[in-house]
Amino acid sequence: MPRRDGGPVETDGRAIWRTFCAGWHLFRGTPSRFWLEQELHDLFGVEVAPSAETADEIYDRIASCIASPQFRPRALFDSFKLEILATTDAPASSLDAHAAIAASDWDGRVVPTFRPDALVHLNRATWKQDVEELGEAAGTGIDTYAGYLGALQQRREHFRRLGALATDHGHTTADTTPLDRSDAERIYAAALAGSVEPAAADAFAAHMLFEMARMSRDDGLVMQIHPGVLRNHHAEVHDRFGADKGFDIPLPVDFARGLRPMLSAFGTDPGFRCVVFTIDETTYSRELAPLAGVYPSMRLGVPWWFLDSPHAMRRFREAVTETAGFYNTAGFVDDTRAFASIPARHDLARRVDSGYLAQLVANGQLGLDEALETAVDLSTTIPREAYAPR
Amino acid sequence: MPRRDGGPVETDGRAIWRTFCAGWHLFRGTPSRFWLEQELHDLFGVEVAPSAETADEIYDRIASCIASPQFRPRALFDSFKLEILATTDAPASSLDAHAAIAASDWDGRVVPTFRPDALVHLNRATWKQDVEELGEAAGTGIDTYAGYLGALQQRREHFRRLGALATDHGHTTADTTPLDRSDAERIYAAALAGSVEPAAADAFAAHMLFEMARMSRDDGLVMQIHPGVLRNHHAEVHDRFGADKGFDIPLPVDFARGLRPMLSAFGTDPGFRCVVFTIDETTYSRELAPLAGVYPSMRLGVPWWFLDSPHAMRRFREAVTETAGFYNTAGFVDDTRAFASIPARHDLARRVDSGYLAQLVANGQLGLDEALETAVDLSTTIPREAYAPR
Amino acid sequence: MPRRDGGPVETDGRAIWRTFCAGWHLFRGTPSRFWLEQELHDLFGVEVAPSAETADEIYDRIASCIASPQFRPRALFDSFKLEILATTDAPASSLDAHAAIAASDWDGRVVPTFRPDALVHLNRATWKQDVEELGEAAGTGIDTYAGYLGALQQRREHFRRLGALATDHGHTTADTTPLDRSDAERIYAAALAGSVEPAAADAFAAHMLFEMARMSRDDGLVMQIHPGVLRNHHAEVHDRFGADKGFDIPLPVDFARGLRPMLSAFGTDPGFRCVVFTIDETTYSRELAPLAGVYPSMRLGVPWWFLDSPHAMRRFREAVTETAGFYNTAGFVDDTRAFASIPARHDLARRVDSGYLAQLVANGQLGLDEALETAVDLSTTIPREAYAPR
Repeated sequence: MPRRDGGPVETDGRAIWRTFCAGWHLFRGTPSRFWLEQELHDLFGVEVAPSAETADEIYDRIASCIASPQFRPRALFDSFKLEILATTDAPASSLDAHAAIAASDWDGRVVPTFRPDALVHLNRATWKQDVEELGEAAGTGIDTYAGYLGALQQRREHFRRLGALATDHGHTTADTTPLDRSDAERIYAAALAGSVEPAAADAFAAHMLFEMARMSRDDGLVMQIHPGVLRNHHAEVHDRFGADKGFDIPLPVDFARGLRPMLSAFGTDPGFRCVVFTIDETTYSRELAPLAGVYPSMRLGVPWWFLDSPHAMRRFREAVTETAGFYNTAGFVDDTRAFASIPARHDLARRVDSGYLAQLVANGQLGLDEALETAVDLSTTIPREAYAPR
Repeated sequence: MPRRDGGPVETDGRAIWRTFCAGWHLFRGTPSRFWLEQELHDLFGVEVAPSAETADEIYDRIASCIASPQFRPRALFDSFKLEILATTDAPASSLDAHAAIAASDWDGRVVPTFRPDALVHLNRATWKQDVEELGEAAGTGIDTYAGYLGALQQRREHFRRLGALATDHGHTTADTTPLDRSDAERIYAAALAGSVEPAAADAFAAHMLFEMARMSRDDGLVMQIHPGVLRNHHAEVHDRFGADKGFDIPLPVDFARGLRPMLSAFGTDPGFRCVVFTIDETTYSRELAPLAGVYPSMRLGVPWWFLDSPHAMRRFREAVTETAGFYNTAGFVDDTRAFASIPARHDLARRVDSGYLAQLVANGQLGLDEALETAVDLSTTIPREAYAPR
Repeated sequence: MPRRDGGPVETDGRAIWRTFCAGWHLFRGTPSRFWLEQELHDLFGVEVAPSAETADEIYDRIASCIASPQFRPRALFDSFKLEILATTDAPASSLDAHAAIAASDWDGRVVPTFRPDALVHLNRATWKQDVEELGEAAGTGIDTYAGYLGALQQRREHFRRLGALATDHGHTTADTTPLDRSDAERIYAAALAGSVEPAAADAFAAHMLFEMARMSRDDGLVMQIHPGVLRNHHAEVHDRFGADKGFDIPLPVDFARGLRPMLSAFGTDPGFRCVVFTIDETTYSRELAPLAGVYPSMRLGVPWWFLDSPHAMRRFREAVTETAGFYNTAGFVDDTRAFASIPARHDLARRVDSGYLAQLVANGQLGLDEALETAVDLSTTIPREAYAPR
């Protein structure tokens, strides 16, 4: 998202909105512009472009909309015709909110996703506390590596019972090299004792990706991997405000060597399914399409984060289809915290995919009937199958 | 090539064909689809799309075609109007089949290509046996490094006499750093004794690329290099079935540093010609086009393997032409084992190149007469010149 | 620039021009062709295409043009309507020529740019001599690290007084890691004594990028960085003719980690402005657009050197706009030594940008009024703002 200055942060909603509207030209050509434009028009009925002059008028209209019953989250969920919405949750989460939805008379499908990143990166500042909460949630001891594995396994089962279909893994690299059991135990013990070396922590994180793959093979949760982001890039912001306050910058990723241990072990196992995402586009044609084309357990995740935009989504199809086809990709999954933007995001992805299919038809490379079937498959059959319980 | 499951391998041709036809939708958007469609229609006269329903009808038609005399290999070669077909052969090959063709009354041009990969990678399981066969074929001792070099040189001459135009080199990296003579001798002796370190084997492979360049400079064989593939990615398949059973995944390649020793030594030598291929597209505009643009001995190989498909071939022209022009590329060379697909592959490459030229004309960037001349050059003059004996 | 042979270099202008015209087809599809065609036609009134037959006619026409007063440099500068022309100059330069222009009655704006590369790379053959000239120019001692820093600072001020807006930095990597003061002093002293290790020289170069950023923050000169080129690729040419005689090949660049120290320290400082260029296109969407999108002090430099060509400039906009927008880029800056090609180069860049904007309008992604405003901003407002004194 473009920004122009590093000035003080506004906390008043209307003031922020005025600044935003006055800088509307900064978003030209960006997906934020495309989503917001569609959202403002289709959802909130706004007919004017954002600007310093129109900011208040639009603000008032949105405020009046979201005060009305048809803009309550469940009402929007129903009107958006969402088939499923997945949250990501720490393994220690009670998932009470999910249980409450399940117990309610509303039939919207909102499921948790198992995200153990904080627990497998031993050198995060909060690790000790997080792993203790894991032990409490699982009701088991975590003072041994075996106990830790057991607790993770037990929480996965808890997630699965509340409807979870998948796990989610954000690592700096794609390394999945397993450790010898004794090495894993030794590093885990060192972490508990508060003295883990950076290289040992990295090796443990890679090892745990392998272990998570093994558990996925056993319990059928689909494993989502999205490596290659240097988080907390701005040292001062990180020091003042803590981790995960933005300033995340993508890195090159070595999927060919990184995923080799995991795919060698589980890549042809019918019980295992992984979906691999990237924001390093250079890996599309070089590594990810060849890997997804040859390992039956792998699906290629669609463009995500910095890349779920028109040109980037088009480049994705152009780079991977010729090697992996359409049916080894996973279908569009948005990754947004902006609930009201969901229809615009899916609509944009569907337009781009349809544009790509239309070009194949116009070029005489695909029949119109085939293109229409593929367009429907990309938005329904393929994602349903990619995330189906195994 | 897309695939959907890791099930047991069918060995019955008709059963395989039925499975293939039932999964025809999996190939949508892939070059396999485009080639096969053209091949089935133009060569075998098939008028229906493959599907579970049409599988037997198409199978029977193909079976009846290939039983007829006009579908014999030499007849197809003539009807395809092939100017030259090059095989790749181990240095120890007798090349008897090539000699037999030369001695026959058929005038098709089928030539060998010298491929010494197995002999320069000292840590391959079969190396000792391969180098012994080399010595036998050359009729010289290979128990010293000098004998080994002499045997290679002698076999290159044998290949050249039977019409070979080129050598072919598939390495994991693009490194061409030469070793001191004494280091090369020492590592070679260690390999013969069965105890070569991985790093020494890698250094020797790089050294031998440099030596092969020197021999090319001396005997005029064109040197084809295509580095950057991690072979035998699936450990279990490799352990069960041996090397080169698929699961090859491309890697990033460092051409700028890797080729520097070779190009510094021979890159401006009129006696030397190399053609460099890649499946790491990131190197097109960053390294390969600048290198091909500045070293007279180098030609940039066209898209190959995972990349000889419409979008990838178009990206190649868009990425390299603006730096290296058309006349520093090598012209389309298909790399197929599927004999009947050759016309479709060349036709596709010519269409893509013509589409690129047409856009330049439509944009006012090139005259129509120039584009027509370039289109012909790309498919005739340029590859003939690239592989011409020096 | 394409070339066909490594033959002897012609020194006679007419003979060189005849060879060039006879090889005019080698430039098909390259920007050299597009620029020259426009330049020959629009500036010199040539109506025929270059060829062996037309070479003399065109040569004579150009020779007659440049003998006339309206083709004198200042006359061309005025007729090209150049707003500003910046040279790059060694820190020790007296800048007498700039002073002479300033003192003349001609009002063209020609300003110096501070380029300290030779002074911060301690292992260059000429370093000792260059740093001594720096000391003489600054009139201060350079036998301590503090004196060296002071001399650089003093010369920056001299450049600024003569109109300089920017500094310019070409490094092999993007590393900006600062050294401890004592390490910097120790390495500097070793270099003065003639014995600096390659790794120490690299660390010092990185450190000096950080120091140059600090000075830019203090004196307001805009810092231009363009890393990632392996210079003097051809060893023999380098040995015979010395450094910077061509054979420069781009390398992969790690901007995410490399720029982190500098951007963490100064990236949100209103006094600092950097413009980052690349010829490694893989960094556009992966690193540079996210960095320019999040750090207010950074602007993304436009395609440069091998990349200021139609397809490459279009790829730039397609790769970066969706993450960084238009207003975090720096506007087109040509980087040519060919004075007469300046209008054609800017014209080409404006056409490509306009073509990109036109597609957004045609797709319904941008209003025509917005596109027109952005087109003007890209060629005027944005570069003026990017290089405005801070």
